[in-house]
Amino acid sequence: MKLLRYGPVGQEKPGMLDADGRIRDLSGVISDVTPATVTPDAIARLRAIDPASLPLVEGDPRYGVPVAGIGKFLAVGLNYADHAAEAGLPVPTEPIFFTKAISCLTGPNDPVMKPRDATKLDWEVELGAVIGTTCRYVEEADALAHVAGYVLVNDVSERGFQKERGTQWDKGKGCDTFGPTGPWLVTPDEVGDVQALDLFLDVNGIRRQTGNSARMIFSVAQCIAYVSRFITLNPGDLLITGTPPGVGEGQKPHKIFLEPGDTLRLGATGLGEQRSTVVAFA
Amino acid sequence: MKLLRYGPVGQEKPGMLDADGRIRDLSGVISDVTPATVTPDAIARLRAIDPASLPLVEGDPRYGVPVAGIGKFLAVGLNYADHAAEAGLPVPTEPIFFTKAISCLTGPNDPVMKPRDATKLDWEVELGAVIGTTCRYVEEADALAHVAGYVLVNDVSERGFQKERGTQWDKGKGCDTFGPTGPWLVTPDEVGDVQALDLFLDVNGIRRQTGNSARMIFSVAQCIAYVSRFITLNPGDLLITGTPPGVGEGQKPHKIFLEPGDTLRLGATGLGEQRSTVVAFA
Repeated sequence: MKLLRYGPVGQEKPGMLDADGRIRDLSGVISDVTPATVTPDAIARLRAIDPASLPLVEGDPRYGVPVAGIGKFLAVGLNYADHAAEAGLPVPTEPIFFTKAISCLTGPNDPVMKPRDATKLDWEVELGAVIGTTCRYVEEADALAHVAGYVLVNDVSERGFQKERGTQWDKGKGCDTFGPTGPWLVTPDEVGDVQALDLFLDVNGIRRQTGNSARMIFSVAQCIAYVSRFITLNPGDLLITGTPPGVGEGQKPHKIFLEPGDTLRLGATGLGEQRSTVVAFA
Repeated sequence: MKLLRYGPVGQEKPGMLDADGRIRDLSGVISDVTPATVTPDAIARLRAIDPASLPLVEGDPRYGVPVAGIGKFLAVGLNYADHAAEAGLPVPTEPIFFTKAISCLTGPNDPVMKPRDATKLDWEVELGAVIGTTCRYVEEADALAHVAGYVLVNDVSERGFQKERGTQWDKGKGCDTFGPTGPWLVTPDEVGDVQALDLFLDVNGIRRQTGNSARMIFSVAQCIAYVSRFITLNPGDLLITGTPPGVGEGQKPHKIFLEPGDTLRLGATGLGEQRSTVVAFA
């Protein structure tokens, strides 16, 4: 099942993708896709619905973040060995995590805004897990059972803010529009093996990132289990799991950073694609 | 005006403190104290109410976090020069900020839970500002006008998690119960000069922290203005502003860390006091 939210910013309605990839309107069933609608019981009720029985949404509406009211947006960094190498940082011996501000969440195809003072705006295609049941000291073997679904996320980063303004990364990770998420929340049954997903990201039509979740240092299950030893994850929380090689600061012979007008296209197996354009601060 | 929430966990009601320090029930006026009720218009409507006209709350109820639905919980670190020295870290040239998980928020007098594996559980009395209007690239001179009120916060920290498990602090800052907040949200008119507040913290009846917000490296206004250049602050967001000297890891000749049974008492001028007990993981 693929859940989504569509419509103008702040007026999104809940939807479900049908077998032909068309949006069906769920607003007669639930008022929105929220943490309360990604719990196992709520997901089971939605799964019982035949999408063909729902009203077809005409046209080509904007996609919003597929879950409204995300409580926490956590991120594991340097989780692909090749990316750690290109970042000039040692391969971590345990997961590194940081926080993206929830105010940076934005629709998958919305513009990515270059902040004032930004000079090193960068991209990171990532696999995200949306939590469906509370995780607190969960074991690795049990961790994936707590996932309501997976999403595609661009962990947009400003490297100067992240690395040159003190030790803490959150500063360069949470600017407005730094969290394009979606288009869909895809339930685990449709994703299959979450450690076998291809990821890619193109900038201006040139392939920059190519990876597969098989090459994560810490699996999605390990990341969830690990984080849950420090921070309790609740339904609707979003955890992203690191990026494969090919970010802008890793380009050779010269680093490449994003400027207004640049276009991004990214995707992951089964999770859909994002297409966005970088815009100047407004 | 002092706003608060009282009652059992998850069943808190809104309240207001009257001139005699007694709780008055606001639930006939608003359903809860939320981000929507700390905006300037909403605060103005509440201010027009005579607390004596509201029902008196009998007994000695539990206090909850004074604002429900806090969206982001951000923290400036090392913001008192003496504390930076005791932490063995250089005085920052610009504010350092990190994120506390919203799931760590707890009532001001609720137990502080020592996590599994914790060996360096520490305390930090802090002044917190709750945002009332959106802050994005605000100037220092305008920053305090965006504050709905101030709160007392204990920025409970696990130093091993924070500093010995990779570079990012969030890991040691967001465990459950690491954010006792309250008892009250105090509006700025009652606080007066926010850079002239005494802060203290006692452990087992022994004074460990003594400070005054006059000795912040970056003022509250500077902290808000600075953070707003990276992350947009919205109504209901909570920003805490650093701790004075005297944390456990700064004790001489030996560091002192918290263990189950230890008691904490902390306070700040005009913001009330917290009294809590450390408990084992449960």
